[in-house]
Amino acid sequence: MQSIEKLDEIWQDKAIESIINFVKSADGDFDCIAELLNAVSDSDSLQKIVEFLSSTPQGKQAFQKRPLLGNIDLQKLHRLPINSLGYSFANHLLTNNLQPLQAKSVENDYDFFAAHIAETHDIWHIVTGCNTNVLGEIQLEAFYVNQLYASRFWLALIAKNLLKAVIYDIELSTTYMDAIAKGWTMAKQAKPLFGIEWNLLWETPLEDVRNSLNIILPNG
Amino acid sequence: MQSIEKLDEIWQDKAIESIINFVKSADGDFDCIAELLNAVSDSDSLQKIVEFLSSTPQGKQAFQKRPLLGNIDLQKLHRLPINSLGYSFANHLLTNNLQPLQAKSVENDYDFFAAHIAETHDIWHIVTGCNTNVLGEIQLEAFYVNQLYASRFWLALIAKNLLKAVIYDIELSTTYMDAIAKGWTMAKQAKPLFGIEWNLLWETPLEDVRNSLNIILPNG
Repeated sequence: MQSIEKLDEIWQDKAIESIINFVKSADGDFDCIAELLNAVSDSDSLQKIVEFLSSTPQGKQAFQKRPLLGNIDLQKLHRLPINSLGYSFANHLLTNNLQPLQAKSVENDYDFFAAHIAETHDIWHIVTGCNTNVLGEIQLEAFYVNQLYASRFWLALIAKNLLKAVIYDIELSTTYMDAIAKGWTMAKQAKPLFGIEWNLLWETPLEDVRNSLNIILPNG
Repeated sequence: MQSIEKLDEIWQDKAIESIINFVKSADGDFDCIAELLNAVSDSDSLQKIVEFLSSTPQGKQAFQKRPLLGNIDLQKLHRLPINSLGYSFANHLLTNNLQPLQAKSVENDYDFFAAHIAETHDIWHIVTGCNTNVLGEIQLEAFYVNQLYASRFWLALIAKNLLKAVIYDIELSTTYMDAIAKGWTMAKQAKPLFGIEWNLLWETPLEDVRNSLNIILPNG
């Protein structure tokens, strides 16, 4: 039987290795995302996230009800008014040739957390106005780090992106840091996005959704 | 003879290794700082920094005149009025049991850049109001990344600190990210600090120095 210290060290080395592998790979490499997610999803930090998110009525209720988006009819959403959340979401997915994620079965708080964050990721993009290019992803990563409180995964993605700038193209540092500051500031001002039942809001104008969440888009 | 690609790869691996070593060491470990500085001080990025800093009259003049602080009489500065830059600087060094750095001989732009940044580091701490604890250092690292434009060293320090939070204590993420956003925002608003002849300003009230540089201290 190995000591806890030894197990910690093995865990730490695996986490560092998955980040370095990602630094040496292309932005958005799916295998690297999966490897990183697996390496840093320990129950300690997940428990801290669940406790933090449960401290608001919205978050607490989400863990009790575990609402998922269910099947999404993209074509139907795309026929909603152009200013609606549903239209923006459908248009985003159709334009980027993406399919809505199908949530796996959810049996505990950690499952629900993972499924909810994964299936609402594109909605967070829309609502926060974060682009799907590298800068938009970095902005959204900073937003997640703020709103999820103890997320090793999203903070690791920011660290990975800064390391890529250090190693391969230091002149990216200004735009990367700008994106971090923007996402962070926006998330601090905003109300929590975790646990929102987005499929009750498809017909709501995107601007009203943003206003109700106090999401203030940065200039430029 | 090795190909340029092979040399690049060796350089990249050395830089990554020095950052990972630092992640596994104590905050502020001097050997790690020296190893990192050595690993990421390539002439390409230094040249970009020099070009960027030379784009202002203050920076251009600094590279021409190469002004250094020279010998500093801490006791004399400590007798200046309590609100002066000189008193604050002397008091900071005396309280933290630090000695002013002695600049090495300066023979080219890169030497001057390195010597000037090193010997004015504590002055930047004073003027930006950044503490010398980890959070203050992170805030100042973000300030440097902004003001030096292409600094692998200071961006690597930020990445290193975020990695430490990912691996060892994810609950630090909020204060670390706050420090980054504060330092970054402050640096964007501020005038360039590089190239200032600080020893002409010892008697100036610190508040006047900050106002003239448009340094706005963040709340809290």
